[in-house]
Amino acid sequence: MKNLIFGLLLLTAIGSYAQENLNFNAKKEITSPEINADKTVTFRVIAPNASKVELQGDMLGAPGIAPMLKQTDGIWTYTTAPLKSELYSYSFIVDGLKIRDANNVYQIRDVASVVNVLIVGGGKADNYLITDVPHGTVSKRWYDSPGNSKQRRITIYTPPGYENNKTKYPVLYLLHGMGGDEEAWAALGRTAQILDNLIAQGKAKPMIVVMPNGNVDQQAAPGEDIKGLYKPTMQLPNTMDGKMEETFTDIIKFVEANYRVNANKSQRAIAGLSMGGYHSLHISRFYPKTFDYIGLFSPAIMPSSKISSKVYENFDATLKTQFDNGLKLYWIGIGKTDFLYKTVTDYRKNLDKIGAKYTYVESEGGHTWSNWRDYLVQFAPQLFK
Amino acid sequence: MKNLIFGLLLLTAIGSYAQENLNFNAKKEITSPEINADKTVTFRVIAPNASKVELQGDMLGAPGIAPMLKQTDGIWTYTTAPLKSELYSYSFIVDGLKIRDANNVYQIRDVASVVNVLIVGGGKADNYLITDVPHGTVSKRWYDSPGNSKQRRITIYTPPGYENNKTKYPVLYLLHGMGGDEEAWAALGRTAQILDNLIAQGKAKPMIVVMPNGNVDQQAAPGEDIKGLYKPTMQLPNTMDGKMEETFTDIIKFVEANYRVNANKSQRAIAGLSMGGYHSLHISRFYPKTFDYIGLFSPAIMPSSKISSKVYENFDATLKTQFDNGLKLYWIGIGKTDFLYKTVTDYRKNLDKIGAKYTYVESEGGHTWSNWRDYLVQFAPQLFK
Repeated sequence: MKNLIFGLLLLTAIGSYAQENLNFNAKKEITSPEINADKTVTFRVIAPNASKVELQGDMLGAPGIAPMLKQTDGIWTYTTAPLKSELYSYSFIVDGLKIRDANNVYQIRDVASVVNVLIVGGGKADNYLITDVPHGTVSKRWYDSPGNSKQRRITIYTPPGYENNKTKYPVLYLLHGMGGDEEAWAALGRTAQILDNLIAQGKAKPMIVVMPNGNVDQQAAPGEDIKGLYKPTMQLPNTMDGKMEETFTDIIKFVEANYRVNANKSQRAIAGLSMGGYHSLHISRFYPKTFDYIGLFSPAIMPSSKISSKVYENFDATLKTQFDNGLKLYWIGIGKTDFLYKTVTDYRKNLDKIGAKYTYVESEGGHTWSNWRDYLVQFAPQLFK
Repeated sequence: MKNLIFGLLLLTAIGSYAQENLNFNAKKEITSPEINADKTVTFRVIAPNASKVELQGDMLGAPGIAPMLKQTDGIWTYTTAPLKSELYSYSFIVDGLKIRDANNVYQIRDVASVVNVLIVGGGKADNYLITDVPHGTVSKRWYDSPGNSKQRRITIYTPPGYENNKTKYPVLYLLHGMGGDEEAWAALGRTAQILDNLIAQGKAKPMIVVMPNGNVDQQAAPGEDIKGLYKPTMQLPNTMDGKMEETFTDIIKFVEANYRVNANKSQRAIAGLSMGGYHSLHISRFYPKTFDYIGLFSPAIMPSSKISSKVYENFDATLKTQFDNGLKLYWIGIGKTDFLYKTVTDYRKNLDKIGAKYTYVESEGGHTWSNWRDYLVQFAPQLFK
């Protein structure tokens, strides 16, 4: 009787939440996506009135769209072939309208679009899962950037145990690509999960990971600054004109003043994807005694010599100086079908010409987060050894 | 010419992102929602094939659904009446299928549903906006809860300047309702924005805000624990059976060991909404010398005497002891149409009976985040005076 009364009151309470929670009292409860034992994945949509429903996702072969099948109960379904371990993203297209999966609350934003995600484990994507290991802390905070005359937002990962000891840690500066911001590596890149797992497995040293916003005209990610909840667009102004490189010392100063770090070259790494690879290349060259570890993930190596910024002057000479100063790892990764493949090949020739030693990894695939997460998993264990 | 070459390369780079970014190359660029100068809001959906499109949202009067009008270009629109300043949530219903607004990346999850949000400023919702003031830090970290035999995730707001001084701060423990988790107050409650603004305006003292997970069977919010990306449900087990109250000392110990706080009654506050109001009531009573400030926001006051947990024993006597010990603020807020209105009225009679002094605020509306954000805005300035 006691439990009955309590249960009834709880149900009343739940009813009240449904006022707030418009979708909660759905008529049919379905599961989507459902990851089956054989690693196939079943997607489901309730759309009795639709005449055509499709699945669009990166788990499908070209062209990346597959028709879903209508069942007698108005539920459309699609089951994939067995899938490799990966973080996948997808949408549904219902009578031409692209929608998200109402039964999957997990999603990521990339610039102005939001897609659902799922993780198929049992392989490389196990690195992206939250596992039963000690967890680091992810903080969103603000720092002063005098070089940009503004407060700016930054994401900082501190490793498990950071708060409870006196150890000084090494720092990896991890930079996003065009369209990204200080949220990108943590959300799309699963950085905290990857580092938690690699550190727990003894594969990577405990390190602080600093994820700044590489669009110097932005204070913060869309929705996180005084511009309010505007519609995001690609950030072009000043993202690749030297300003990020010139003002990067603001970030290093902030980190070294606010965290227990070893403030020396052997304990600093910088890596980035696409535009962030470009930034990492130039920042590490422009401050040639600052980083012992450099990672260029599918770097967008633009003809920087064509841009009038002192950051990009004397490219070959300053690059040679950087290597002559000595560094421990200069790591380049790119996918075989990446549209930047040729520029990276040309850049490698340039490195060869000046006698620079680097590590080169050529992966399958193109310009994708799947590769960038992989590169982080490969790169982080090589740091601070 | 230099700029042209650079621009072309940038466009190529953008093209490559579109591979990742399935929605980016939409054929038509529309804005939705558009907040007009007169505080009306226009919503838009591109759905040329649909035969019926509706807007569902809390800015509409009952029944909360309005038909949208099809324009000649296949875009459906709806413009509201001028709206009061508020954070609103909404969805579209296209031929019976509830979908999110593809042109609005801002959204919140509440249990298993995700809805779009917008903020109409110029009034009370200005407190929810990010403004040009110093910003606190929001951290997601893990603490050990021996009482629950697990590591658990917690959200901590530290006020602007916390990292750069030696001050000891007061602490507000802020608890979510049923269906919520350690993400709820930060996401739905706009806690960081509210505190940043109130502190900058001199209305609230700088304080640390601790937002734990009140579902003791959970390690963390859905998607943030080892269960992976499962479909969330209401958390019933052990949420209101005394376990949260019994193990709350784990949270206080963690906070007081890891943050610069004034560890005394006059510098501790506890508040919560709905189930979190119930937790706040019982935690403050069960540890009757711990909190000088208690906030019950639309509290779900269950017949706790019917549940067999020592936390709920001797209700009146222990409540009287709490008040006899002295406290500075016992604040109760509830909406006139809240389904919990009567139980709160009964509880107030009980407080009157034992001679307890409290502050009572009766607002318009029901069991909604609109009220809970308001209550925080009213409650926080009264703390630690």
